Amino acid sequence: MSAPAGTQQGTRPGGRSAQKRAAVHRAVAELLAEQADLTLPVVAARAGVHPTTLYRRWGSVGDLLADVATSRFTGEVVVPDTGSLRADLERWAADVATDVSDPDVLMLMRAAVGAGESGACACRGDREEQLAALLDRERARGGRPPTVARAAEVLLGAIYYRAIFTETPGTPEWARGLVEVLLPS
Amino acid sequence: MSAPAGTQQGTRPGGRSAQKRAAVHRAVAELLAEQADLTLPVVAARAGVHPTTLYRRWGSVGDLLADVATSRFTGEVVVPDTGSLRADLERWAADVATDVSDPDVLMLMRAAVGAGESGACACRGDREEQLAALLDRERARGGRPPTVARAAEVLLGAIYYRAIFTETPGTPEWARGLVEVLLPS
Repeated sequence: MSAPAGTQQGTRPGGRSAQKRAAVHRAVAELLAEQADLTLPVVAARAGVHPTTLYRRWGSVGDLLADVATSRFTGEVVVPDTGSLRADLERWAADVATDVSDPDVLMLMRAAVGAGESGACACRGDREEQLAALLDRERARGGRPPTVARAAEVLLGAIYYRAIFTETPGTPEWARGLVEVLLPS
Repeated sequence: MSAPAGTQQGTRPGGRSAQKRAAVHRAVAELLAEQADLTLPVVAARAGVHPTTLYRRWGSVGDLLADVATSRFTGEVVVPDTGSLRADLERWAADVATDVSDPDVLMLMRAAVGAGESGACACRGDREEQLAALLDRERARGGRPPTVARAAEVLLGAIYYRAIFTETPGTPEWARGLVEVLLPS
């Protein structure tokens, strides 16, 4: 599958160079696909716990990561209750932005995403439930708030995008401004 | 650091159980932090290429991942030019949503994010530049489009959020609807 390593002849002609690049790209894709090295036995050995304990309690690495991530990702954000949906959302968005700009949280989020679907889902933690609570309260006041899905896509979408996919996580002030996108005044 | 493995006494009392959970959580965090196993020598060995070639051409794993990801993540999306910013953005958003709902692309995105900052940044590929081209064209027509940053946060933010952090990537139809959030009519 890989390019033969012993066939150099002189100073790497174009075709040989392109072959190497293709081989390297293929190797990266293969290695990434295999990167399932965080197994329950590996965690058990590191933690000094019997693997059966982990299997009994968590069942899979995904479940375990979800547990770690949930307990880590939702500790810092409280559900505000100011009496105004806009103010609640502004405060909540600013808190989430502050939380995910912490390098430790960011590292854990990236690792959880890298560990696959259940790890990635764990990054939402209880945040959509917190949003649901804010939006329900507005509905009880007689308002017509957006859906939880729309609020999550716009607010968490933008905050996570900035934190994970760019080099500049958003500031709390910027996060507050996102609420204007969700609820144009 | 880890809980001693030889001190069980009977059927795991509460304190012992909580200790185990803490030890497991700590182990996961440590292992995730150390997960830098995709190195240039590892890739070189898999690809059948001399490591020096990789160091010379890419410099770091981050640069290499960025190269792989960029060539993979931006192949399928063309920059539409319908004469209308709204229609251009709808078509572009639908194409991006289709692209990232491909399980192979999603796997590569997750792995790139897991590999750290430069891998994550590579997931944007040329997409912000494509957005900039659409928005510049609107400006040349005399319109007042949103900034690239705002358009990326809202459109890519929501599309990536659905694809990566939920179990249900967005449909092209849903992605088209996001343009209404960015450009309320």
